[in-house]
Amino acid sequence: MSKIQIGIVGYGNLGKGVEKAIAQNPDMELVAIFTRRQPEDFAGHAAKFEHISAAEQYKGKIDVMILCGGSATDLPEQTPVIASMFNTVDSFDTHAKIPEFFNTVNAAATQGGNLSVISTGWDPGLFSLNRLLAESILPEGKDYTFWGKGVSQGHSDAIRRVPGVKGGVQYTVPVESVIDRIRSGETPEFTTREKHLRECFVVAEEGADQEVIRQTIVSMPNYFSDYDTTVTFISEDELKEKHQGMPHGGFVIRSGITGESTKQIIEFGLKLESNPEFTASVLVAYARAAIRLSRDGQKGAKTVFDIPFAYLSPKSGEELRRELL
Amino acid sequence: MSKIQIGIVGYGNLGKGVEKAIAQNPDMELVAIFTRRQPEDFAGHAAKFEHISAAEQYKGKIDVMILCGGSATDLPEQTPVIASMFNTVDSFDTHAKIPEFFNTVNAAATQGGNLSVISTGWDPGLFSLNRLLAESILPEGKDYTFWGKGVSQGHSDAIRRVPGVKGGVQYTVPVESVIDRIRSGETPEFTTREKHLRECFVVAEEGADQEVIRQTIVSMPNYFSDYDTTVTFISEDELKEKHQGMPHGGFVIRSGITGESTKQIIEFGLKLESNPEFTASVLVAYARAAIRLSRDGQKGAKTVFDIPFAYLSPKSGEELRRELL
Repeated sequence: MSKIQIGIVGYGNLGKGVEKAIAQNPDMELVAIFTRRQPEDFAGHAAKFEHISAAEQYKGKIDVMILCGGSATDLPEQTPVIASMFNTVDSFDTHAKIPEFFNTVNAAATQGGNLSVISTGWDPGLFSLNRLLAESILPEGKDYTFWGKGVSQGHSDAIRRVPGVKGGVQYTVPVESVIDRIRSGETPEFTTREKHLRECFVVAEEGADQEVIRQTIVSMPNYFSDYDTTVTFISEDELKEKHQGMPHGGFVIRSGITGESTKQIIEFGLKLESNPEFTASVLVAYARAAIRLSRDGQKGAKTVFDIPFAYLSPKSGEELRRELL
Repeated sequence: MSKIQIGIVGYGNLGKGVEKAIAQNPDMELVAIFTRRQPEDFAGHAAKFEHISAAEQYKGKIDVMILCGGSATDLPEQTPVIASMFNTVDSFDTHAKIPEFFNTVNAAATQGGNLSVISTGWDPGLFSLNRLLAESILPEGKDYTFWGKGVSQGHSDAIRRVPGVKGGVQYTVPVESVIDRIRSGETPEFTTREKHLRECFVVAEEGADQEVIRQTIVSMPNYFSDYDTTVTFISEDELKEKHQGMPHGGFVIRSGITGESTKQIIEFGLKLESNPEFTASVLVAYARAAIRLSRDGQKGAKTVFDIPFAYLSPKSGEELRRELL
């Protein structure tokens, strides 16, 4: 059988992750990477690069386009345009705007006769799937989503803007004692803030007043003032050595009751050394589902909720039942 | 909208769990419970009981039959017969015989124009889903399934057959140190035996030689001789007080790599105070999926792999995207 022909749009951390993930899936082949930069900038690279304006010329040659832009400005613009020409997969993650995004992409994909999987990855994505599964099985219960331990890009940027700061990184850390209470079957009310700590590792400029920096960070509204925040000063070498990765992860836990008051707990967790590489791997599995659904004659926008897991795997139904059920 | 009309076949622990789970789902209604016993035995019970031979008379009045018999003899006989008349859901769990069971049920359901969800529950079921999901996302990796801490009915029965034993219960317990190694990203080879301990709580008859009982248990082939097994003698009162529940649970953990050698871990776990009540809740959610798939015009046997999670929930696609994605 011929390989699934994949295009990548956008070549940041996520796009690079998708390129690596395709190499792990022998039923797929990378056709080209589309970028807003000049394709010549990537001379010598193993993959083929094209300017994004050349995408249309690949109609009929690419089965699925994996869109790797950001949710703030790239995807709202790119997904509908690309979805009118190709099957697509993206990781649009602005939760509040998903319904509107779905409608726009649905119209574009339907009109083009294509299928678009929107908002996949791990949250939205695998975490959403687990919230839905657990709620459907335990209708009387409560679920909790924890993020971390992981790097928050927005908060790291905020630290780096503080005067006297040379470099820094912020980790969001779920509060262990809260997780333990939920795992033991309690269902207390918690805000996001009560469930998470913020750990900052900061490199100060020479001669800067560390106490002033610390105070500026912990009292920063929206970002840190409402959280338990720690600030640890480290050297530039230590920042480079220990804090260059993009780890992340988290948990979705639902605590529910059945019968009279029987406690039942469902938990899903991720521990990721690289957030973008993992998200990329999820996108690639859903690209396989996208082309199959499209070949089944389905059109329009879909989410992870609409897609049977069998479509994610290269194995046949018979193999899946024999090996994994 | 009219409620989903449910029938239950079999009224053991699982059937009782299904009855309770239906009461937690306002979009469902229990029509009747079908049993091999005399329906008169259940006089005074709130639900309607019928002899299993009366099932045919309910054609057109029941949307889905939830089959709650055992996998050894009940389901291989009952599922094909009932599937020729009704949509069905069952928890057939003899892993090695699933392919054959699937084919038989598929033929019967297809011929009857019905849809049958086979082998759902948590293993097979939710654990299978997580094995498939994790393997599809992390093709380079290894997964581990742990069961417990939970009561094994077969092993408890084996203990109770030992001369001098008045009562007893066996717990399968996953080895914490092994779980910790896997969670830390190691991917060692383990047999089921190396991953689990067996804890026995035994009530000895008066005057029985406890050391002989202990030796008989720990050296029992197939059941205990290959495992690290502990035997603790307790009083009859303690057995009644502390060991009457049917707790269970376990974990599916996949440890994989992306990119060069980036470690990524996906974990799904359950902690259940009642195994049958939880399994029942899964069956009921899949009953909702069964009637919807059937109304879509689908026929034949399906497994959890074939069913999008959206079908498990009473919420609309729009609600799901807004609230849970």
